[in-house]
Amino acid sequence: MEKKGKYLVYNYPHPFELERGGVLPSLTIAYHTFGRLDSEKSNCIWVCHALTANSDVDDWWPNTVVDGGFLDPDKYFIVCANIIGSCYGSTGPLSVNPATGEPWYDNFPKLTIRDIVKAHILLADHLGLSSIFSLIGSSVGGFQALEWAIMQPYRFQSLVLIATDVYASPWAIAIDETQRMAIFADSTYGEKRPDAAQAGLAAARAIGLLTYRGQKGYDLTQQDSPSEDEREGVPEYHRACSYQRHQGDKLVKRFDAYSYVTILDSFDTHNVGRGRVCIPDALSKISCPVICVGITTDIIFPPEIIKKFAAMIPNATYSEISSQFGHDGFLVEYALLNSIINNFFSSVSSTN
Amino acid sequence: MEKKGKYLVYNYPHPFELERGGVLPSLTIAYHTFGRLDSEKSNCIWVCHALTANSDVDDWWPNTVVDGGFLDPDKYFIVCANIIGSCYGSTGPLSVNPATGEPWYDNFPKLTIRDIVKAHILLADHLGLSSIFSLIGSSVGGFQALEWAIMQPYRFQSLVLIATDVYASPWAIAIDETQRMAIFADSTYGEKRPDAAQAGLAAARAIGLLTYRGQKGYDLTQQDSPSEDEREGVPEYHRACSYQRHQGDKLVKRFDAYSYVTILDSFDTHNVGRGRVCIPDALSKISCPVICVGITTDIIFPPEIIKKFAAMIPNATYSEISSQFGHDGFLVEYALLNSIINNFFSSVSSTN
Repeated sequence: MEKKGKYLVYNYPHPFELERGGVLPSLTIAYHTFGRLDSEKSNCIWVCHALTANSDVDDWWPNTVVDGGFLDPDKYFIVCANIIGSCYGSTGPLSVNPATGEPWYDNFPKLTIRDIVKAHILLADHLGLSSIFSLIGSSVGGFQALEWAIMQPYRFQSLVLIATDVYASPWAIAIDETQRMAIFADSTYGEKRPDAAQAGLAAARAIGLLTYRGQKGYDLTQQDSPSEDEREGVPEYHRACSYQRHQGDKLVKRFDAYSYVTILDSFDTHNVGRGRVCIPDALSKISCPVICVGITTDIIFPPEIIKKFAAMIPNATYSEISSQFGHDGFLVEYALLNSIINNFFSSVSSTN
Repeated sequence: MEKKGKYLVYNYPHPFELERGGVLPSLTIAYHTFGRLDSEKSNCIWVCHALTANSDVDDWWPNTVVDGGFLDPDKYFIVCANIIGSCYGSTGPLSVNPATGEPWYDNFPKLTIRDIVKAHILLADHLGLSSIFSLIGSSVGGFQALEWAIMQPYRFQSLVLIATDVYASPWAIAIDETQRMAIFADSTYGEKRPDAAQAGLAAARAIGLLTYRGQKGYDLTQQDSPSEDEREGVPEYHRACSYQRHQGDKLVKRFDAYSYVTILDSFDTHNVGRGRVCIPDALSKISCPVICVGITTDIIFPPEIIKKFAAMIPNATYSEISSQFGHDGFLVEYALLNSIINNFFSSVSSTN
């Protein structure tokens, strides 16, 4: 199938100051666009991606960038930028530090979600997108979307928040810290090569997967066959073991430990209340219509969490997806999401 | 406070054949007893411990070995044996392999839950306990209790199964495999010393803790203080990070990576149906009254799982503990457990 999106790169040749005190001498922002911006520049949807994803939404969010999907490229001009700190084209730990002529690796400065959003803003300004029809973020993409909507409420006609939170909860931070512990347990972390700490990174990914899928997700898809399960001898093989290792190996082929740690660290800084009196005050700045979507079996951001913050956003409604796939439900249940978000978009358009 | 239990050691000087094919040349079984066996030898309660616990129930199951607790040492003679493969006195990877004169380390033979139970049986026979008033197991202690009750149904007057399962589910196995991945990511695993792979072991423990506590457990106890949380600057400290590292460090001081891997491996073999046609057939062998206890927020063995297998055991009832502490609820909610199990014991005694 022909690739639908365009892969583009924006170079920002100025120093970029970071919230935690560092400076990046310049920025490269890799992004994809799908569809066409209409003459009124009124049909843009901006998607913020999660953890190890990239700017190619069509690649990681299947069956959404399709005819009739909420990211229908015949109707909308869709933009997704690779977050800084990542390794899919935007400035990150594998980029060359001009001061040394070598990649940053573990010397890359620490980022925050607000830094990541500031980079999105540079790109949106560059593209002349003063009004964006909808800003969409799921999981830690939702962290970015929330921050951006609070920083520039005038920029968005609507906001879609899926399986996310208004701050990095102790639970979310504990999950991140545990992944860092696994990476740091690999003593090759710190070696100046892109493939350092691969065993640790694979273990970290396996930890992540536990939290993305949860009990029902595993028990539904990773049962041993009855012949493995109830034969006389003790099975030496379990599908669930093989799955965890396979998923670890897969990530190691496409990601690196330094970018992974950089991004995890940035997630832990997420708190829309920081410097804004408190979380409810920050959320009260969001004026556009908002839909907050929870997934019944999500163990990272359970529905109660989504409902709770939805109630603090002035013009928000809550919608729930019933799924057995946990947090990953946002990737698996595209049919339900297409329906929920298309309905939401219709209501937004009709009141505009 | 004076230690209530007696720490004892039973040496079994004969070869002990293992289900997966190895042989241990002899066994040492460390165990605790509390209270006194009555003249009819009718008041014994046998407790099977979980993962990294030991034979001192009073140490790891607070407020149960007390006046009025379900392990009241004035009423019952309580026995708990350290499982083989562990490092609290029973034969395990740090024991000396007589063939080499050195500890086994990663050459310790692979165990199954049935091997662990066979060792319990040796000790119970040695102690002359032909009739045991109640067999109690929580978590992977429940794996042992289930196996034992199926292997020797005539031995038990009652059975208490808390937060456990009839087989190692794909989800449970995935959690174990992820912990092994973290341990093996530490390249010192395999070195012939008891403190090998400590960083990996700490990460594995942190993974375990995520699953023991779950979202509510963390969000209830590990919130950053508001001053950390909503001050102007980006916090460099999170209580949840410190907690994960602290718990990892704590385990490393009292456990070793070889015993940990040995025990995890044995858990993955748990399937009461193996060689017994199927799980329901195996469960139908249990004839005594059984109480199966689920915990509302347990993400390892959710209530649905417990209810499902309770329905397959002929004489079982299901009881639920409402708790915010996830799987660890079985340790935290001792007041509820004391009440539920004491009531169950009363009903068992009155029908005998």
